Amino acid sequence: MSITMYQASVPQFIRMLGNLKGILEKAAAHAASKKIDETVFLGARLFPDMFTLTRQVQLATDFARGTAARLAGLEPPPVEDKEQRIAELVERIDAAIGYLQTLPAAQIDGSETRQITRTVRGQARTFTGLVYLIQYALPNFYFHTTTAYAILRHNGVEVGKTDFVGTFA
Amino acid sequence: MSITMYQASVPQFIRMLGNLKGILEKAAAHAASKKIDETVFLGARLFPDMFTLTRQVQLATDFARGTAARLAGLEPPPVEDKEQRIAELVERIDAAIGYLQTLPAAQIDGSETRQITRTVRGQARTFTGLVYLIQYALPNFYFHTTTAYAILRHNGVEVGKTDFVGTFA
Repeated sequence: MSITMYQASVPQFIRMLGNLKGILEKAAAHAASKKIDETVFLGARLFPDMFTLTRQVQLATDFARGTAARLAGLEPPPVEDKEQRIAELVERIDAAIGYLQTLPAAQIDGSETRQITRTVRGQARTFTGLVYLIQYALPNFYFHTTTAYAILRHNGVEVGKTDFVGTFA
Repeated sequence: MSITMYQASVPQFIRMLGNLKGILEKAAAHAASKKIDETVFLGARLFPDMFTLTRQVQLATDFARGTAARLAGLEPPPVEDKEQRIAELVERIDAAIGYLQTLPAAQIDGSETRQITRTVRGQARTFTGLVYLIQYALPNFYFHTTTAYAILRHNGVEVGKTDFVGTFA
């Protein structure tokens, strides 16, 4: 008995991106109700040399799309990093979810032994699909989704861990 | 072809807890070199109603131990929340890693269909092992490890994402 590479990746990326979208929508509503310029949130970071909220959200979508695509033996379609508004980040998330939904489970299943080469810290690195997903992709994906949440929380947006973890299937 | 519940959980918990230990050790060294009382870091939080660094680390170890134990059909041994120093949190991490290493892969494999009941937001909730691991345990584990990192980063400790994600098997 076992689980599939698809079960361990795509449906959870879709769920977490949906949760991130909900968190961003709460931030937009908070900004509107407090008459805060929402770009203050988008440019916020936890330390001067950390990434902004916008970049954290971009990276979360990129890790989800890129991971799923490479497990399926594809390259993800390129996306321009140009979002200036929360609504545009929400559109980026919706597009990522839409892309993930196009990937058939059968194309990802069995990818645990697929060779996947990525540039990590400036060096080409070849992973098996299993190591790529469990050791590289999931920690990075959760790192950026959690940091996006933490930036908004740190800036007073009223969200909680339930918004982050979501409801269960 | 597929992966096992063990592959998707225990070895990665062990790796990430080891990375978290390294991050805490850097924080202790930073505190010592800057003559900062390390308990300032331990009590730090990103917002007044968020958990402190100490609590984030406690929860990260608890999610790792608890998840692995329950997938194996066990209850994790109780641990007292009493750490007052970084070195004590490092000991807690070491103990969690030691516990995880006692769990045989064969006892966790096949747990994707095991029924696991947890109290979530005050309500009893029964999961399959698969949903418990992928939708509940991993997001919570990564949430607390990332937030621990973010608290230290926000307080000027010089760590990077490499410290968080670690090196690859």
